Amino acid sequence: MSELSLRALAMSGEVNEGDDLAAFLLEALARAGLSLEPGDVVVVTSKVVAKSEGRVVDFDGSEESKQRLIEGESVRVLRRRGTLLITETSHGFINANAGVDLSNTRPGTAVLLPKDPDRSARRLRAELKRRCGVEVAILVTDTFGRAWRNGVTDVAIGSAGLTAILDLRGTSDANGRLLEATEVAVADEVAAAANLVLHKAAGTPFALIRGLDPSFFGEGSIVGDVVRAPHGDLFR
Amino acid sequence: MSELSLRALAMSGEVNEGDDLAAFLLEALARAGLSLEPGDVVVVTSKVVAKSEGRVVDFDGSEESKQRLIEGESVRVLRRRGTLLITETSHGFINANAGVDLSNTRPGTAVLLPKDPDRSARRLRAELKRRCGVEVAILVTDTFGRAWRNGVTDVAIGSAGLTAILDLRGTSDANGRLLEATEVAVADEVAAAANLVLHKAAGTPFALIRGLDPSFFGEGSIVGDVVRAPHGDLFR
Repeated sequence: MSELSLRALAMSGEVNEGDDLAAFLLEALARAGLSLEPGDVVVVTSKVVAKSEGRVVDFDGSEESKQRLIEGESVRVLRRRGTLLITETSHGFINANAGVDLSNTRPGTAVLLPKDPDRSARRLRAELKRRCGVEVAILVTDTFGRAWRNGVTDVAIGSAGLTAILDLRGTSDANGRLLEATEVAVADEVAAAANLVLHKAAGTPFALIRGLDPSFFGEGSIVGDVVRAPHGDLFR
Repeated sequence: MSELSLRALAMSGEVNEGDDLAAFLLEALARAGLSLEPGDVVVVTSKVVAKSEGRVVDFDGSEESKQRLIEGESVRVLRRRGTLLITETSHGFINANAGVDLSNTRPGTAVLLPKDPDRSARRLRAELKRRCGVEVAILVTDTFGRAWRNGVTDVAIGSAGLTAILDLRGTSDANGRLLEATEVAVADEVAAAANLVLHKAAGTPFALIRGLDPSFFGEGSIVGDVVRAPHGDLFR
């Protein structure tokens, strides 16, 4: 029976604007005695992607500064309660604080979401193929809250080489009846799984996932496939 | 570096009311050449739990019959669009169709959610301890839609022995600053991870997860800890 395995890869050093994420990842893999194989999925947390893309801004720690940053990243405010803002970002993501990250950043700074995380994922994937000759899938992930359920989970915000939504409609069940509700958000499930091995506080921004069902690989875009169009959304 | 592994366990036969789920699981494990170890998590999909608890009802396939079943399982209708109903169940879960399962069931029947899935999980956990002397964690999972994002993911609806929400508030990051947004819904992340190896159409209702961080184990209740109280919910 096939087995799915996940492990965190620790990074050494700090990522700064213009840094080569592929080099950080390959170094982390080498330190763990691993190399990339076809069928691997590499999960990268959005913060290191954002840092490498220069999405770091000044932040003085004040509430006004925080609100200004969040509103600058938002196209719409869905809910406001006290200092909590639930907004829609330019990507179409709905999250608290528009994904602006105020923790685990250099003092005096905040980190924004990557501008186009699907493109960030594609770029890292192409760079790894160029250097290693291996096609892997890349997910960029971030931590989002949910409606109706407490706690945050990691979700995919960018994908390259992995199907975002696996469409099983038209698949028959064991009794020959068509399955319902079978557009599975596999990229988000992989992101959630990866968070089980990542330890945000400890500087492990990469996870290596091996053994994923081959049918999950293909073209996928989080912004294109996972973000629900406003006119089809019952909760906006 | 520690590794997390997941594998699906195929079941032989059909589960009926009064059947002993522990026996099905132990048989599936034995067939895979495995036995339970401390620190294991076993994920069980809600359908087999529900069947063993007799939560199977007549369903003639008509739209009226479907609506009647869904309304019978709901305490509140949040949204209605065409034949799609988003409702709140007696547990407090918010999902399409109140979790009523119309696919992969015996013709002429539908399967409801277990009445008290946390208790179902506790009961299976106790039974496994009695038979094997090993304490494992049990999650009962089901497939839910989400607000704002396309596709469904598996979430936990019952837990025993696994923390539902891991509270990292008060934990410092690598720069000594307090982490934000750090109540992590680990039970839901485990449920999502397990769905990556389960194949609903193929009769694999169990997943075995090995290598989970020891700090994730403890008492947890999905209804008690994960369901957001209506007064704290901005999207109801």
